[in-house]
Amino acid sequence: PKRYCITLLPGDGIGPEVISVAKNVLKLAGSLEGIEFSFQEMPMGGAAFDLTGSPLPEETLLAAQKADAVLLGAIGGYKWDKNEKHLKPETGLLQLREGLKVFANLRPATVLPQLVDSSTLKKDVAEGVDLMVVRELTGGIYFGKPRGFGTNEKGDEMGFNTEVYATYEIDRIARVAFEIARKRRGQLCSVDKANVLEASMLWRKRVTAIAADYPDVELSHMYVDNAAMQLVRYPKQFDTIVTNNIFGDILSDEASMITGSIGMLPSASLGESGPGLFEPIHGSAPDIAGQDKANPLATILSAAMLLKYGLGEANAAKRIENAVLDTLNKGFRTGDIYSAGNKLVGCKEMGEEVLKSV
Amino acid sequence: PKRYCITLLPGDGIGPEVISVAKNVLKLAGSLEGIEFSFQEMPMGGAAFDLTGSPLPEETLLAAQKADAVLLGAIGGYKWDKNEKHLKPETGLLQLREGLKVFANLRPATVLPQLVDSSTLKKDVAEGVDLMVVRELTGGIYFGKPRGFGTNEKGDEMGFNTEVYATYEIDRIARVAFEIARKRRGQLCSVDKANVLEASMLWRKRVTAIAADYPDVELSHMYVDNAAMQLVRYPKQFDTIVTNNIFGDILSDEASMITGSIGMLPSASLGESGPGLFEPIHGSAPDIAGQDKANPLATILSAAMLLKYGLGEANAAKRIENAVLDTLNKGFRTGDIYSAGNKLVGCKEMGEEVLKSV
Ligand SMILES: CC(C)[C@H](C(=O)O)[C@@H](O)C(=O)O
Ligand SMILES: CC(C)[C@H](C(=O)O)[C@@H](O)C(=O)O
Repeated sequence: PKRYCITLLPGDGIGPEVISVAKNVLKLAGSLEGIEFSFQEMPMGGAAFDLTGSPLPEETLLAAQKADAVLLGAIGGYKWDKNEKHLKPETGLLQLREGLKVFANLRPATVLPQLVDSSTLKKDVAEGVDLMVVRELTGGIYFGKPRGFGTNEKGDEMGFNTEVYATYEIDRIARVAFEIARKRRGQLCSVDKANVLEASMLWRKRVTAIAADYPDVELSHMYVDNAAMQLVRYPKQFDTIVTNNIFGDILSDEASMITGSIGMLPSASLGESGPGLFEPIHGSAPDIAGQDKANPLATILSAAMLLKYGLGEANAAKRIENAVLDTLNKGFRTGDIYSAGNKLVGCKEMGEEVLKSV
Repeated sequence: PKRYCITLLPGDGIGPEVISVAKNVLKLAGSLEGIEFSFQEMPMGGAAFDLTGSPLPEETLLAAQKADAVLLGAIGGYKWDKNEKHLKPETGLLQLREGLKVFANLRPATVLPQLVDSSTLKKDVAEGVDLMVVRELTGGIYFGKPRGFGTNEKGDEMGFNTEVYATYEIDRIARVAFEIARKRRGQLCSVDKANVLEASMLWRKRVTAIAADYPDVELSHMYVDNAAMQLVRYPKQFDTIVTNNIFGDILSDEASMITGSIGMLPSASLGESGPGLFEPIHGSAPDIAGQDKANPLATILSAAMLLKYGLGEANAAKRIENAVLDTLNKGFRTGDIYSAGNKLVGCKEMGEEVLKSV
């Protein structure tokens, strides 16, 4: 059998619960396709800080780098909100992305027919939405230098950051996005603010240049303010969106809320080579942690992305995706996606139901 | 009678049509309150570029600076999309904001009961939305230096911009926002990305410090990605939002689309002293320009903001606001807000109907 080594990072809040469920699903889907996993659980986020004094201990990063793929639960919580910046769980996450060089963040936002009523958008606007945000994840204003604090001529305190993109960074994320668009509906919308920012002008120029290698993909450009509007007005117009780190942070969250079921949405972060990082897009939800109330489906679907994008095991991935749809069709719902007429279940029971359909 | 000098900048596309209508409404509302206006029309945007070679001719900026208030229609259009950056209509607008030192951009997003069905959000989510985005307009990444293009160590081309805020810039926009929140429902939500950006950390620190002077206003903080979600999930939670230039660009457009009627939404840009700049938030709509199809209500309501925030003439402002509501109650609708059972009118007729109710 094929063997893969997976690093599990349960993290904080509901993280451990959803990871434990997703691990079982991954195991079963793999074994049915002749795949064996060895799992290594490592501390990350606030839990790691409590244990070791660092939100991303060196052993955790090393284990992740050596793995075939990394599955993360969630990080953060009120408890660590007052930590100094370099000791915050979020900083650990940024360091993990940097350390794994996962520059391409894939965030699908899909409205499932079973859950269309969860959206705050009118049914005819929400139904059929199926888009993918490809966000640049290791560049731009998140990592740009110089950054910090200083004083201006008048002795006034200043805080500053640098939004910067180099050609190679834009080219590689553009290629990932074109490849993805090609396998979807063949439409790529590049989002920038090229009417104001030089970093965006270079972005637009390079994305346009790379398009020459993908004549089968239809490229369009949109300003970020307009994109934020269009996602509300008519989200179905989008197939694949590619954008920078900060715009991707904002737009992918907006897009996920449009589906109305962020407890369902997975994500993948990929590098040139080396292990990918897979995680649900929801947070650590400290208010419901440890109560068996969390929706594990986003993490289960992240495990499917791990199989598909991280290991190239499309069949095993499909098993998981279908199992999730089956389970929804049978009417099983956690609290966040519950509506009258369905069966309310907890995190564990939802996991067991999915296992039955894998 | 009181006398005010108003600079009118019709601009491009539908700009001249909506300005001509709004001017008549302003005149009548003023005269009924003992106010006389002298109007000076100046070229701006693409129209100014065609006429003089510059999107903001010096005479236009000088006239605007000397006026008591400035009313702008809209700028831009396909025709000038290929202009070099410093000759684009948008650059003229940024120069006008800088030249008038209007650092505070007020963008209300209100769902009127008459138009609640225009929103793509479900009725119970959209109805009652009444929020104000206060956007910092002359700082941050729009104007920060250094900016431009360069090459990195590897000889790779780079594009870069600087997000920078100084204490005095944050303090003054925070004060404007607290004053506005105080006159509204007393809630201010400051939006930033303080978990990642130093510029946002200073932002949060200063807004928190200024809050001490406004004990009657309830201050909260939200990350920009979460704000983009919350605007879709439950927009009624917001009263007043204050944020930086680029986040404000994105979130105010998202908020306006949530109302479903961006043809209705005005904006005001104010400085420490000197004339304010008032304009509809919609664009120049070149596809319907010159066809008497434009909705003039956003510009008419911008004229109301001009009276209220620019000249302190609250009574005349109220006349215009009430006239707009009356006209909607009578069922008059331009194409963009039309729904069955109402009376479809053009730009001019809508203006005449509003005049009847002033
Ligand atoms: C936690 C935070 C640093 C992170 C980000 O901004 O990238 C999060 O919002 C995300 O989108 O994964
Ligand atoms: C035209 C453009 C430069 C401008 C901006 O980004 O500020 C516009 O989007 C706005 O919001 O007024």
